[in-house]
Parts: sequence; structure tokens; C-alpha cells
Amino acid sequence: MCVGRGVCLVFEVVLKGALLFHCEPDRVLVRVQELTLEKSDQLIWVRARIHTSRAKGKQCFLVLRQQQFNVQALVAVGERASKQMVKFAANINKESIVDVEAVVRKVEQKIESCSQQDVELHVERIFVISQAEPRLPLQLEDCVRPEGEGDEDGRATVNQDTRLDNRVIDLRTTTSQAIFRLQSGVCQLFRDTLMNKGFVEIQTPKIISAASEGGANVFTVSYFKTSAYLAQSPQLYKQMCICADFDKVFCVGPVFRAEDSNTHRHLTEFVGLDIELAFNYHYHEVIESITDTMVQIFKGLRDKFQTEIQTVGKQFPSEPFKFLEPTLRLEYQEGVAMLREAGVEMGDEEDLSTPNEKLLGRLVKEKYDTDFYVLDKYPLAVRPFYTMPDPTDNKYSNSYDMFMRGEEILSGAQRIHDAQLLTERAIHHNIGLERVCMLYLGLHNVRQTSMFPRDPKRLTP
Amino acid sequence: MCVGRGVCLVFEVVLKGALLFHCEPDRVLVRVQELTLEKSDQLIWVRARIHTSRAKGKQCFLVLRQQQFNVQALVAVGERASKQMVKFAANINKESIVDVEAVVRKVEQKIESCSQQDVELHVERIFVISQAEPRLPLQLEDCVRPEGEGDEDGRATVNQDTRLDNRVIDLRTTTSQAIFRLQSGVCQLFRDTLMNKGFVEIQTPKIISAASEGGANVFTVSYFKTSAYLAQSPQLYKQMCICADFDKVFCVGPVFRAEDSNTHRHLTEFVGLDIELAFNYHYHEVIESITDTMVQIFKGLRDKFQTEIQTVGKQFPSEPFKFLEPTLRLEYQEGVAMLREAGVEMGDEEDLSTPNEKLLGRLVKEKYDTDFYVLDKYPLAVRPFYTMPDPTDNKYSNSYDMFMRGEEILSGAQRIHDAQLLTERAIHHNIGLERVCMLYLGLHNVRQTSMFPRDPKRLTP
Repeated sequence: MCVGRGVCLVFEVVLKGALLFHCEPDRVLVRVQELTLEKSDQLIWVRARIHTSRAKGKQCFLVLRQQQFNVQALVAVGERASKQMVKFAANINKESIVDVEAVVRKVEQKIESCSQQDVELHVERIFVISQAEPRLPLQLEDCVRPEGEGDEDGRATVNQDTRLDNRVIDLRTTTSQAIFRLQSGVCQLFRDTLMNKGFVEIQTPKIISAASEGGANVFTVSYFKTSAYLAQSPQLYKQMCICADFDKVFCVGPVFRAEDSNTHRHLTEFVGLDIELAFNYHYHEVIESITDTMVQIFKGLRDKFQTEIQTVGKQFPSEPFKFLEPTLRLEYQEGVAMLREAGVEMGDEEDLSTPNEKLLGRLVKEKYDTDFYVLDKYPLAVRPFYTMPDPTDNKYSNSYDMFMRGEEILSGAQRIHDAQLLTERAIHHNIGLERVCMLYLGLHNVRQTSMFPRDPKRLTP
Repeated sequence: MCVGRGVCLVFEVVLKGALLFHCEPDRVLVRVQELTLEKSDQLIWVRARIHTSRAKGKQCFLVLRQQQFNVQALVAVGERASKQMVKFAANINKESIVDVEAVVRKVEQKIESCSQQDVELHVERIFVISQAEPRLPLQLEDCVRPEGEGDEDGRATVNQDTRLDNRVIDLRTTTSQAIFRLQSGVCQLFRDTLMNKGFVEIQTPKIISAASEGGANVFTVSYFKTSAYLAQSPQLYKQMCICADFDKVFCVGPVFRAEDSNTHRHLTEFVGLDIELAFNYHYHEVIESITDTMVQIFKGLRDKFQTEIQTVGKQFPSEPFKFLEPTLRLEYQEGVAMLREAGVEMGDEEDLSTPNEKLLGRLVKEKYDTDFYVLDKYPLAVRPFYTMPDPTDNKYSNSYDMFMRGEEILSGAQRIHDAQLLTERAIHHNIGLERVCMLYLGLHNVRQTSMFPRDPKRLTP
């Protein structure tokens, strides 16, 4: 087990380290992201995947990758390494996991292609911990290439379906690692913010006895000797909680829609971030509570997920997400005025088309420098019949949409109340996790922010 | 709108406060739990439900309830209240929501039946905010009565099915309020602990193309022109994440089992707390990681949810949950020895029956004073074929169960590894949220800790 410097060994049956060791060996593994100038000239161990490998005479350059981070490593014939070792290193299949003992060395010129740009590793020992298959269905280098580059230089990019068919490999890319760490962060920030506001997290059933939203677009489940349905929203259960005095509840969980739509923004299963709260005096209490929650999420992402945002930006460049505190609340009339000023012809009580929503998003960004805003007081005519009219002008209503980068993420309204229906005193909100992540990062397909997306044509992996 | 002291008004159409007000009225609402001696002699507003009401001559005693908390209120004919007002108060239906203006007064003798035992409210004004139906399908007083009491004194208790059929009302009880707040806490503590350990939260699909655990007990879903299944566990997806270099992942979400069992501990849909992590050297790293997570949950509950634990204990008394830090890890052989000492006859390689698990739980509690422990090194013969033998004695295996109050909550094992199967280097764990809450609180039916339980006979509410 104990091998001298410059020796290379393959432990064919040793997975992710020493299932054969019964006590911990002496190597302390350093994380790739910790390989900075501070570690210069230190001898360290690192466990990572071989991302790329390029042999050149007596040298072999490796890029070692660990999650979002990668570092260059050099195996060169000399005092510490034999010719055999260089050859051995050059022949290790890409994506294999290796343990490397190496000295951290400062580099003269920044290594632009790696996350660790200031240092490289001078390898003294290398062990293959897990050998990858020699031929992979897709190349990780191709998976992280910015879109468009493939065409110009004749190098490949990988299309969405190939990625999803080989999701285990695609998820290893620095971009995927960053997206799904950020998504985990969105959930955490959402929950922490609401918990701090006194909300209770609830768990609602997904198998229900009657279709929750009128029977359209619902999946049917065989349930012993009868049939049941998959919940299209947790709304009914959240309202029951409000009636049961929980006052402020939220849930995070799957939502199912049997909609036969094949677009960039529709999934048949997505993760709903659902909020329900009773208000004491005015529906603006609810708007404030939700916009503040969104702002806390945006701030948390900005402050704690800068690495992830930048990693995604390397492959999918976009403007940083801007927001105001407190959140901008525009009235519908003001939005219409801005659109008219930009040349759009529309009536006072006409609904916004999707292109006009997008345009208004750009106009709001120009004027107010924010990618997030609330459009309040929609015309009563374009909202459902149970929407509460604005008591000061019944052409309008107590209803609103929230937008990120010009796309609606949430629609809310005060409903007409009725003393017999306690359920109506609360306002329901459903935000799609995948959508929020997509728009925050400026991505263009919700499949990029769903780890294992489901649509009418995709049930796997 | 402005009414003098001693006047009573019903706002029939005003729900949970003043949808009619367009600015906030001057009343600042105090929470019932804040009604302590510190507020003595202050004039306050409180909004709560009428829990009980008892008129007696010129007085009416109300108990006002808000979530887990309740307080006694007195409406008495005198300077501040007319005879009409006392009569009015006495006639408000139970479960109505009222706004009360009252002076907080210290009481001579503690009010044992209320959570706020040191004070009562002397009511000056009372408004009905939302009138409840005069006849309710079940009485909240009956719902919180300790089991057994009903029989002896001839007072009713409410059976599980009646509760569930009227869940909105049953969830209003102090006991339900406490259980589901504690459950929310378990989720939060679970996630926070894992996040602090560097885990990533993932979202896995619930609609899958093939039955995840061999095809038995799986629900079938109609999926456009084909069929799909509901996930029985997120295991496959978590393993894909490990292969995709996420290293440590967890998820919290629904798990579906089409098992036709009608017992105190089976549900067809429950919330899985799933952990998957790769280990570097030894499977005990995994045991330590999980037991530490459980300990953090137990500590968090003990330190932050004492009110909830005590509230549940009033209706369902149980011994406080004990645990050790670090967690007790017993080897199977030691467990067998303890059982034999207690008179159980069993072989070295014989499996534990459910009664013997329960008995061992009691023996461990007596000897070590803990309700949580790990039983490690199960006989190879009683575990699945792919379980890793103990390298020092192949009669045993690298597998373990974890127990709370003598009931298994989690079963884990190192699998035989294979260099071609990277998926196998990780250990999967699924803990049921409802089960953990049930056992922690010493309850006896998992339906008590599932807000809207699903079993072969129940799909509603």
C-alpha cells in the first residue's frame, strides 16, 4: 500500500478512496477551490476528475476538475517523476477520479481556462481511484462551451436533448454545478426569510381525490380500486391551513400539470414555492411581504452565490440581475403610459401581450434600473370575475403581477370576500422555482434549471 | 366605524379585519402569547377565536384562543359594559373570530386550563370579525381532551377518523398547532444542519418512467398517450447526483407507496427526508454524519420547541425524548447479549422481531438513558445479498439500523462495490418525516403527524 514517490498505481476496485483501508490513510485531501497562492510551495493531496489531458514530449498537462472548480496539473519527467509515470498519466481516461500528490506552484501568467488561475500543481504521485470508461457519450469541454462558439470555430456544442439524455455527465459541468447550487440556495433563502417572518412550513398531499383546478390538465392515478389525481397546486390545502389558524404558511414541493405544451417555459412537473397568508387590513401587506421575500432571495444570491453566478455567466453571459429596495410598484395605468410613449397602441383596459410584457420590462429597466417590479391595479375586465374591484375606481382591481426580466413569475389578487367563506381572506401565491432560477440567471430554457425535467415528450432520466 | 366603549358591533362582511378600511385603524393587535404579567393593567386589543363561552348571571367568561395559546376573558356588567353587551358576548358562536379591547389583569389563582395562567382580560369592547356556524361537526374542547378521560368522566374524545374528516377544525386545536409547528421545525433543522455540512438540496422528479423499486407497490399514472409511475424513493436520482460530483445531497419531498396496509405506521404518501453522501474511507463516516444530523435536530427541538413539546404533552403525555452526544453505537452482538440477559432466546444470526426491537429499545434506555441509538454490524444472513461483509468477520456485515423509542427509523448498509458502478460508492438513507415526529413526541399513530394523511382508505380531505 505504501508506495515511493514517482510511483503510479491503479486500484481497480477502490472506489472514491479506500474501501480497503480500515483506518484513514495519512493523506489529507485539499479541495480544488482552496488551491490558491497561499498554498504556494506546499506539498498537498487532491482528489479530482481528469477534465482534460494533453501529452507533449516529456510533459503531460492535466486539468483536474472538482465540482465548479478546476486547476492545471503538470506531470514532467525529472527528479520526481519517471518517463513511465508521464506516460501512465497521459493514458488515464478523461473523467477518471485520481488522487494526486503535488507541489502547488505559482504561475507567471494567469491560467485563463481554469478557475484556479494563479497556481498549478507539479505532480509527484498519481493514483487512479476510479477509472472512467474510455468513450463517453458527450465531452465535458463541449458541454461548457458558450453557445455560438461551436459554429464559428467548428467546435461542437451540445444540444439540450443530448445533455438531458446523458444528464449524469452533463450535471458534472461547472455550469450545471453552479446552477443547481444556486437553486439550492434559492430554496434555502426562500425558507429562511419566511421562517424569520413567522411562517410555518407545511406538507400537502400530492395525491388528491378531485382535480384541484377544474379538471383540465390533470394527471390521473390508479389508486387501489379507484382513481385519484395529482395535485395541480397546494392551494386548497394552504387555504385549509389558513382557516385552521396557521395564518402564514408556505410549502415547497412538486406541482403537476398535464398540459401538452412543448415550449421553453412549460414543464409537466415543477417545484412550486407556495405562500399563503392572511392579511389584517390591506392587500398591500401581502405584496410587501412577498416582494420583501424576493428581495431577500436576490440579496442572498448576490452576496453568497457570486462564484456560481460568475461560473454560469462564463457559458451563458447575461446582465447581472438588478433590483430595488423597496421593490418598485407601478400601477397598470403607468405601465400603459410607458408603453404608449414607446409607440405601442393599446386601450386603457386592454391586457398586456407577452411581447408587451417583455417590452415593458425593458422600459422599466431603462427608467428605474430594476429587473424586478410589481404591476398593480390591473383592469377589472382582464381579471377573473371574483377579483376585488379597486374601491376607489372600479375600472381597476386589487390585483397584481410580479415580473423578473420582463416575464411574469407570480400573479395575485384580492378576492371578493364573503362572510361564509373564510378561505377567501387569504391570498394564494405560487412561484415556480425553475422559472425564478432561469430568469435570475438570464437563461432561456426552464430545462436548464430543472435537474430532471418532465415534459410531454420526456420522462427520463 | 368609531364606537364608544361598551358598545358591540358585528361586521358581517368584514373578514379578518377591515377589508373595508383603506388605511390601518388605530388598533394594534397583541398576540395572545404576549399576554403576561408584564402587560398588567394595560389596555390592549387582541384578535382571537372564542374557544369556550360560559354565561353566569351578570358575567360571561370566555376563553379566547389563538393558535397554541389561550387566555380567559371576562365580560361583566359594570362601568365599562352594559347588560346588553354581556348578553351579546354570551351569544357569539364558538369559533367565531373577535376583536376584543380589554385591560390585562393579574389573577389571584393560576388559571390551569389556559396557556396564559397569570392574567385574564377584562373586556371593554368586543367586535365579531367573523361569525362561525352555530353548529360545528366536532367540539374543540373534545379534540384536546387527553385520551381515556372521555371514558371515565363520560365526556367525549374524538376518534381519528372524525378528526380527519373535519381536519380544518381539528388543526385548530392547540395540540395540532404544536405538532405541525414542530414538524416544520424538524424540516428546518434537518436542512440547516445539512447545509452547514456542505450538502446541496436537490429536487427530484416524482413522475418516473419505470418503477423505482422493482415494480411492486407502485402507483401508475396516465401520462398523455403512455403510462408512468410515482416515485417510491428518490434513490436513483440522488445516486445520479453523486455520480455527477455533487458528493453530498439531500432532498425533502413526497414518496409514494401503493401498499395496501392499514396500520398505525403506514401511509401511501409520506414526506421523505433523504440523504445521500459519498464517503472517503469508511462507512462509519456516514453513520457519524447522519447521527450528528439527528442529534442537531433533537437539540434544536429541545431548545427551540419546548412550548410545542409541552402543549402536545398535555394531551398525549410521554417521557421527554433522550439522546446522547455522540450517539450510542451498539454492535448487533451486544444487542443480542442484552436481549438474552433479559430472557429472550435467539440465535447469533437471527433477525430482530418487532417486539424484540421494542424490548431492546427499553433495555438500551435503562442502561444508557437514550431513546436514540445505532445498531451496527447486522448478521450478513439477515441482510440483502449485496450488503458488504464485515472484513474482520464475515458472519456480520457493514450495515446498521437507527432507532427512536425502539422503532426503526432508518436502515443503511455499505454495498459491495464494483469499479464499473460508481453509483455504489454512496449510501442512501430515507427517513420519514411523519415517523420521526411521531416517535420524537411519543405519539402512537403516524396520522397524528401527517397533516392530510393518505392511506388505502383515505384520499380526503
